Amino acid sequence: MMIACLPGDGIGPEIMAEALRVLAALDLGIETAIADVGGAAYKAHGHPLPPETLELARTSDAVLFGAVGDPECDNLERHLRPEQAILGLRSALGLFANLRPATMFKGLEDMSALKPEVASAIDLLIVRELNGDVYFGEKAQRVLEDGRRQGYDFMSYAEDEVRRIAHVAFRAAQGRKGKLCSVDKANVLETSQLWRDVVIEVAAEYPDVELSHMYVDNAAMQLVRNPGQFDVVVTGNLFGDILSDQASMCVGSIGLLASAALGERQTASGTFGLYEPIHGSAPDIAGQDKANPMAMILSLAMLLRHSLGLEEAAVRVEKAVSQALADGITGADLGGSAGTTEVGDAVLARL
Amino acid sequence: MMIACLPGDGIGPEIMAEALRVLAALDLGIETAIADVGGAAYKAHGHPLPPETLELARTSDAVLFGAVGDPECDNLERHLRPEQAILGLRSALGLFANLRPATMFKGLEDMSALKPEVASAIDLLIVRELNGDVYFGEKAQRVLEDGRRQGYDFMSYAEDEVRRIAHVAFRAAQGRKGKLCSVDKANVLETSQLWRDVVIEVAAEYPDVELSHMYVDNAAMQLVRNPGQFDVVVTGNLFGDILSDQASMCVGSIGLLASAALGERQTASGTFGLYEPIHGSAPDIAGQDKANPMAMILSLAMLLRHSLGLEEAAVRVEKAVSQALADGITGADLGGSAGTTEVGDAVLARL
Ligand SMILES: CC(C)[C@H](C(=O)O)[C@@H](O)C(=O)O
Ligand SMILES: CC(C)[C@H](C(=O)O)[C@@H](O)C(=O)O
Repeated sequence: MMIACLPGDGIGPEIMAEALRVLAALDLGIETAIADVGGAAYKAHGHPLPPETLELARTSDAVLFGAVGDPECDNLERHLRPEQAILGLRSALGLFANLRPATMFKGLEDMSALKPEVASAIDLLIVRELNGDVYFGEKAQRVLEDGRRQGYDFMSYAEDEVRRIAHVAFRAAQGRKGKLCSVDKANVLETSQLWRDVVIEVAAEYPDVELSHMYVDNAAMQLVRNPGQFDVVVTGNLFGDILSDQASMCVGSIGLLASAALGERQTASGTFGLYEPIHGSAPDIAGQDKANPMAMILSLAMLLRHSLGLEEAAVRVEKAVSQALADGITGADLGGSAGTTEVGDAVLARL
Repeated sequence: MMIACLPGDGIGPEIMAEALRVLAALDLGIETAIADVGGAAYKAHGHPLPPETLELARTSDAVLFGAVGDPECDNLERHLRPEQAILGLRSALGLFANLRPATMFKGLEDMSALKPEVASAIDLLIVRELNGDVYFGEKAQRVLEDGRRQGYDFMSYAEDEVRRIAHVAFRAAQGRKGKLCSVDKANVLETSQLWRDVVIEVAAEYPDVELSHMYVDNAAMQLVRNPGQFDVVVTGNLFGDILSDQASMCVGSIGLLASAALGERQTASGTFGLYEPIHGSAPDIAGQDKANPMAMILSLAMLLRHSLGLEEAAVRVEKAVSQALADGITGADLGGSAGTTEVGDAVLARL
């Protein structure tokens, strides 16, 4: 089994190093290969997603991804910017299902901006579609006939795109509390109306799951008012981008949250996927041993579970992280003082 | 001066009645005319926005709008649903600038799901573009050549659309703390890139305003983490829909928040506009004297200020509402027991 490791920019390399120490300590005999991505790849090879990096990812069983984003690359043409690497990987590798769990960690209820009694009830999974919507439709800047500049993006979903993500979400709900909330803007968007129609069709195959629908503006309100009401939320690429970040912040620290982007290809013992912390490259604290590597380490746990079928090892990692948190090992993001390697050491000691 | 009053559906008529009692008590000699809109208009006239209603609105100095939305109309064809009335009014009347203030009311800090110290700092204004974006672009359901159903919506902004809303936002920032945050998704959308480019161009005319840019996913996080950091936020129609509802909920009760939708036409002493509470028609509590009319009454205050130039009367109404709240007059939405007319009486008594 081989994992492609793409550390990327900013704090990516330091947190990746901690995840790889954890992987080594588990002694699972898994091969790893490292490649450049994002701004780092642009600087070394002239492109944020060089062909060799894509090839390595494609031939691996899973991709462990750090973070991309580099202020020095902000003024490059769009297709050369670091973010294009993650969009390119999602698209080229067919990673259509983004799983973003947000769960309150015991003892950290105080970290959230939400009241502890509201925050402590958070235990939800956002299933975000990742290959369609306005992200990958035709888009351009143009000058209209009357001389005005216009920017445009084509938003769409086809029924098969909705169907496959709906199945992922219904199955996830079956494995949790059996509740699925589909979020759209069907009162305004035809893309959403098709989305809603297809989700309702798929629901017929899951009579054990309780399906509800919510408009995205209301969902953004409910995630503040009472996030504990949600079990699984399924939504499109754009709404999922917004709501999953909002949900993560409700938990208190985005330094703790991992995510998976799964494709259709099956590996020897799971589903091919890319795993990344939901936080970004945080260039302001890069290289200072300040970044919290927990989200990266928890991303590794998700990888072990979903792509390599190593549930036991995944649980070991997750327990070690929870234990470290319960023991008060917290970095600056949680008001603590532990550095990157110190957090890594603490997790290793509890494996 | 004439106000078109469109009570609409659900709790619309009862809260409108309270606002009209307040208007009468102010004794300003303002004429009012009432017309059907939304589901009520569909049932009476076969269309959610009958021509007579639109004509009345067009010939008035301002529109006071209750709420639309009626579950009995949910399965009608899209163009006959109640929501089309508000979209139709915004578009037909050129109401491009949606002002949605969210301010913490003194004494109500405990009502928010956010911690009191986070919530009490909220004092922001969301300026949402209301005539463009994916709301009004070409949209349809179709069957692709390969037989798959697809839903699509065309998202776009032209430079003049961005420029006029940017001016509204910069001027609003000048009248407040001088800070403007423009929210977009320029790392993915060309519509957003054009938006950002034009906002930066307009900024040259407002050297006294401090402009920043934020991606929408980050904005949704920051509105949870630290909403007090925002002064004025300007954004497009879709992101504005989501973020303004999120911001309102941060304040605690959406039963308190008013909004204005302004056009370009000048009235005798202000700008033509439509004013509505940000909450919906709440059909579940309609007709039970349970709805909080404060957002509707505060919408009237905004109307007096922006469309009729009656600043003094606007302040009188706003003070009466604050005083009633400070005196503990709260409805069920705030955990209190005051009914709709009782709240109305309390505000009247404090005018
Ligand atoms: C970097 C950006 C293109 C990306 C997205 O919008 O999908 C990010 O926000 C995310 O959610 O992974
Ligand atoms: C009812 C709906 C069409 C409307 C919108 O999306 O604009 C509402 O949510 C609002 O924000 O006023």
